[in-house]
Amino acid sequence: MEALLARWRALPTLATCRLHHRAPGRGKLLTLSRMFQPQRLREDQVLSLEGRLGELTCKSQRLMLQAGLIHPASPGCYHLLPYTVRALEKLVRVIDQEMQAIGGQKVNMPSLGPAELWRATSRWDLMGRELLRLRDRHGKEYCLGPTHEEAVTALVASQKTLSYKQLPLLLYQVTRKFRDEPRPRFGLLRGREFYMKDMYTFDVSTEAARQTYSLVCGAYSSLFDRLGLPCVQVQADVGSIGGTMSHEFQLPMDVGEDRLSVCPSCSFSANRETLDPLQTHCPACQGPLTETKGVEVGHTFFLGTKYSAIFNAQFASVQGTPSLAEMGCYGLGVTRILAAAIEVLSTEDCIRWPGLLAPYQVCLIPPKRGSKEEAAATQLVGSLQDHIIEAVPGLCGEVVLDDRTHLTIGNRGKDANKLGYPFVVIAGKRALEDPPHFEVWCQNTGEVIFLTREGVVELLSTVQVV
Amino acid sequence: MEALLARWRALPTLATCRLHHRAPGRGKLLTLSRMFQPQRLREDQVLSLEGRLGELTCKSQRLMLQAGLIHPASPGCYHLLPYTVRALEKLVRVIDQEMQAIGGQKVNMPSLGPAELWRATSRWDLMGRELLRLRDRHGKEYCLGPTHEEAVTALVASQKTLSYKQLPLLLYQVTRKFRDEPRPRFGLLRGREFYMKDMYTFDVSTEAARQTYSLVCGAYSSLFDRLGLPCVQVQADVGSIGGTMSHEFQLPMDVGEDRLSVCPSCSFSANRETLDPLQTHCPACQGPLTETKGVEVGHTFFLGTKYSAIFNAQFASVQGTPSLAEMGCYGLGVTRILAAAIEVLSTEDCIRWPGLLAPYQVCLIPPKRGSKEEAAATQLVGSLQDHIIEAVPGLCGEVVLDDRTHLTIGNRGKDANKLGYPFVVIAGKRALEDPPHFEVWCQNTGEVIFLTREGVVELLSTVQVV
Repeated sequence: MEALLARWRALPTLATCRLHHRAPGRGKLLTLSRMFQPQRLREDQVLSLEGRLGELTCKSQRLMLQAGLIHPASPGCYHLLPYTVRALEKLVRVIDQEMQAIGGQKVNMPSLGPAELWRATSRWDLMGRELLRLRDRHGKEYCLGPTHEEAVTALVASQKTLSYKQLPLLLYQVTRKFRDEPRPRFGLLRGREFYMKDMYTFDVSTEAARQTYSLVCGAYSSLFDRLGLPCVQVQADVGSIGGTMSHEFQLPMDVGEDRLSVCPSCSFSANRETLDPLQTHCPACQGPLTETKGVEVGHTFFLGTKYSAIFNAQFASVQGTPSLAEMGCYGLGVTRILAAAIEVLSTEDCIRWPGLLAPYQVCLIPPKRGSKEEAAATQLVGSLQDHIIEAVPGLCGEVVLDDRTHLTIGNRGKDANKLGYPFVVIAGKRALEDPPHFEVWCQNTGEVIFLTREGVVELLSTVQVV
Repeated sequence: MEALLARWRALPTLATCRLHHRAPGRGKLLTLSRMFQPQRLREDQVLSLEGRLGELTCKSQRLMLQAGLIHPASPGCYHLLPYTVRALEKLVRVIDQEMQAIGGQKVNMPSLGPAELWRATSRWDLMGRELLRLRDRHGKEYCLGPTHEEAVTALVASQKTLSYKQLPLLLYQVTRKFRDEPRPRFGLLRGREFYMKDMYTFDVSTEAARQTYSLVCGAYSSLFDRLGLPCVQVQADVGSIGGTMSHEFQLPMDVGEDRLSVCPSCSFSANRETLDPLQTHCPACQGPLTETKGVEVGHTFFLGTKYSAIFNAQFASVQGTPSLAEMGCYGLGVTRILAAAIEVLSTEDCIRWPGLLAPYQVCLIPPKRGSKEEAAATQLVGSLQDHIIEAVPGLCGEVVLDDRTHLTIGNRGKDANKLGYPFVVIAGKRALEDPPHFEVWCQNTGEVIFLTREGVVELLSTVQVV
């Protein structure tokens, strides 16, 4: 076993093996025994972890703490641990694909927002205590950006040669945002520091801006479809962002803090706060409305010229005259989507991920040290890994070995179940058959099947990796 | 031409084509005419851009402003525009490869650092005015993290079951950092917001920690080798981080603010501030020392138990007794490396990138609209692109089309020269020969060659993409 593990550790890592024709093939694969991830915490241990900081208020928060995916740093601020960073980076890749597919260009704006920009839109006062504010050594005032309408509009306004030919312009970023929540709670669902994807669009006319608005909403729907999350697009209030039209992308769930009214007969759905409190019937088809709770994972705003007029963000029209750009802005709560997905997909005890976002796709469990399967089956697990990577190069770096062979297969299986790898492959008793069979758990469908090496490879060749 | 361009725009983007077996094949390629990048600014225009904010003090800052790679937001804070974001993401991938190759595990810690953690190490006072400080709505004090020794040590200390078997533990992150520089300057070389890779290591003994220290220094050397940057590892002062040993990775250049003493006869090199002001000879071999200036792009510290003792970061030793972890910390200035590479590699007028980091590897320049080459050569450029992507899938998303065909080939060539694409492929007069020949500029070597389609593909098949 030690020889296998030594060989295993000598294998290239995710990054180097995926890019083996480009990068040096040095490095070693991380095995579970080395992973920085305090696992199998009991509920009372997790409670004491958060005890001094806040409340343990929902399933995803408890599961992510118990499984060592996050660790509290201060109220509403979390350390993201290795599994979560992998899931987050995958989510950002899916978002990049969707945003770039509609022509989005990725930028990166500073977190420090000069007070003068925020005063220009009056939001320095309007945002009140949600804005974290500070002064630099010269006494100049800044806020920590919760959103970037001011910054991006000033940036585009500085482009003195912008032509109608360059529009629509779709600029987006994925960066850390800050909001001084009065009562941060639900783990990553409502934090004070969080990752957000924010896109800002600039168009030549109201009509063109409406088309862009539909385009981005379509990309959001496509994103949630790919993640397998049943998102609802509801009519929403414009709040402090402003503008004339707004929609939220809501994931229905019990811990949701938004109340939604959905019409089962037509496509109407709205955040309750946009409706008359007495309204019980759909304004579109007059059918009765159903109430549900939801977590907002995306929000879109049709801004018109609210910001472009203030900062004078102009372009040269077909006629060559300077015209104000028609704007939209579009947010996705990136860390929030991760937690919301776990909230929706998991059981009370076991995390389940959208397939695309699972930190690792496959967990291999070799026999217990000293078991009668050890000699033969340990080798089998090693050659299985080689076969998987050779046949399905996209899975390189996606396969972890649970080398904690002092534990029984049963105990390691429990951990694998809790962490939600989409596929768990176990070399148990039937690994001694001829041909050997592996026990395979397809955790997102609940199936358990026994497969030969070829069968495992065939099954895994269908896995989508981003 | 319009038909070609329409077809071109309908091609999948970088992300979707690199992952075409996984992701939907929607989207369009960005062409230069749509790129958000204020180009060809004259020097006086750039000066006025920075005029109200700071000084235009070095070549990389001027070139990055002129080419539309960055845009000033507030003193020491820049918007990173699309080309820079691409280069930054590539640099992060190279860093991830190097850090994971030595067993690094990626985490992500909050920017808001609670004052009590910084008071525990006395750095709340010691860091003085470099620390940006703020209070939340409850009056609780925080700083914006310029580094994370406090945070990571408290995190590891919270791991009550850490065993010697899990060490060395190498945790790292790539996140935005904040430092209230008294006088931010040189663009991305000395900003107040910047991206940094910071790694923190935990070992069982001084001896093991020294091995880990060497391992990380080796990974840094490997990184700079791969980027083609002539970095020097010099002995350095421990400064406010502390510890007992420290090295800087310095890139020699005239705008450097550090004075280095290098011995031409042996491997000795040191930051001048670590030497006696009167010392003119090498302490190792007694030969005369040479002086040079450098920009610090990396810094390593052997910390011992300075932080682990304060936060009680312990592990269970072989004997089962609790022992303090021996620590190291290791920084890389990520945005600074980008600017420093441009500073070192570029001419006064033209940006040059480390090959691995170039935002796009190839720029294709079709004939001018209305030229006699237009009809035949435009089609050739289209089929060339197909051939490149088919033969070298790694270049998918790395090829941009300069579709500004109202400009001459000469003018577009000047822009391509200025932006520093490693390869510029032009369909000029010799595209009408049989077989057609393309003019190819290998900008990192200065060669200009004429190649057939097959020749171009063969040349580009050697390009490394990360």
